[in-house]
Amino acid sequence: MLKDTERNPIMQLTRYTDYSLRTLLYLHSLDNDKTVTINEVADFYNISRNHLMKVAYNLSQKGYVKSIRGKGGGIKLARPGSEITVGQVVRDMEPNLHVAECFDQDAKTPCTIISNCALIPVLHEATNLFMSALDRYTLETLMQNKPEWMPIVIKPSKS
Amino acid sequence: MLKDTERNPIMQLTRYTDYSLRTLLYLHSLDNDKTVTINEVADFYNISRNHLMKVAYNLSQKGYVKSIRGKGGGIKLARPGSEITVGQVVRDMEPNLHVAECFDQDAKTPCTIISNCALIPVLHEATNLFMSALDRYTLETLMQNKPEWMPIVIKPSKS
Repeated sequence: MLKDTERNPIMQLTRYTDYSLRTLLYLHSLDNDKTVTINEVADFYNISRNHLMKVAYNLSQKGYVKSIRGKGGGIKLARPGSEITVGQVVRDMEPNLHVAECFDQDAKTPCTIISNCALIPVLHEATNLFMSALDRYTLETLMQNKPEWMPIVIKPSKS
Repeated sequence: MLKDTERNPIMQLTRYTDYSLRTLLYLHSLDNDKTVTINEVADFYNISRNHLMKVAYNLSQKGYVKSIRGKGGGIKLARPGSEITVGQVVRDMEPNLHVAECFDQDAKTPCTIISNCALIPVLHEATNLFMSALDRYTLETLMQNKPEWMPIVIKPSKS
C-alpha cells in the first residue's frame, strides 16, 4: 500500500472549506444583523480559533462576511443567505477542483497521456454533476428545507 | 491562509486510484491476453515502478488483474474491460469517500453538529451524482466512445 500521505481522500472538502461553510451556516442561523465573535463560532464547533481567524479573513475578502471592529465587534453575513450557494462557497474556498493529479499542471509527475486521455472528460462530467448539486442549495434553502432534511443544524448558544 | 498540508484538494482521486485506472486502461488497450511487465507500464506513464508494484498487487487482490510469474510473466486483465466500471475501481481503490472531515469518525476534530447538519444530505447527494457518472463508463466504453471523446488514450510501445 502507498503511504497515507500519498492517499488524499477523494472528493474531500478541505478543512478550510468545511469551516467556511460551518461559519456561514452559523451566521445565517442568527437573527438579522447579529454580530458574533470568532471565539463564539470556534467554541460552538469546538474547532481551532486560529484556523477560524484565517477562514473569517478569507470569507471577508470574498464578500461573504463583514468584519466589525471594536467593542461588540465580530463578523456577520455581508449578503442574504438566499444569495449564498454552497457551490459558490466551495468554488471560492477550495484551492483547486482537480479530480486527479493529471489535471494539475504543477504536479510532480504529470501524466504522459494528458493530451488524449479518455478518462478526463468522464472525470469532468462527474465533477460538474457534483458541483451542480451544490449549486442547487443556498444557506437559506438549507435551513428552509427542514422537513426534507434532518432536523436543522445550528442552535447557537446565547452570547 | 491555512498551510498547504491542511488543504487537501476537493474531489481529488488518490494517486493510488489514478495509477490503478491508468494501469487498467493500458492493459485494456492491449491485444487479448497480452501480459506486460510493471516496468513497461511504469515506463509508459513515467511513474514510479515502486508505486506501481503496490497498485498492481492491490488490483490483483481485487480481481482486476492476474499476475503471471516467471519468464514472460507480468500482469494482464483478469476480466473483460466491458465488466470493469470506472466507478467500481474508484470505490475499490479509494481509502474512503468522505466528502468532509465531519463524515470521518476518526477525524481529529469531529464536528459537534454531525447528528443534525443540513449540509450532510447535500454532500451525499453531490457524491452520489459524482459516482453515478463514473458508474456509467467501463474500460470498454471509454475506448469505444472515441468519436465522442478526445482521440483515445493509449498507444502502447512495442514490447
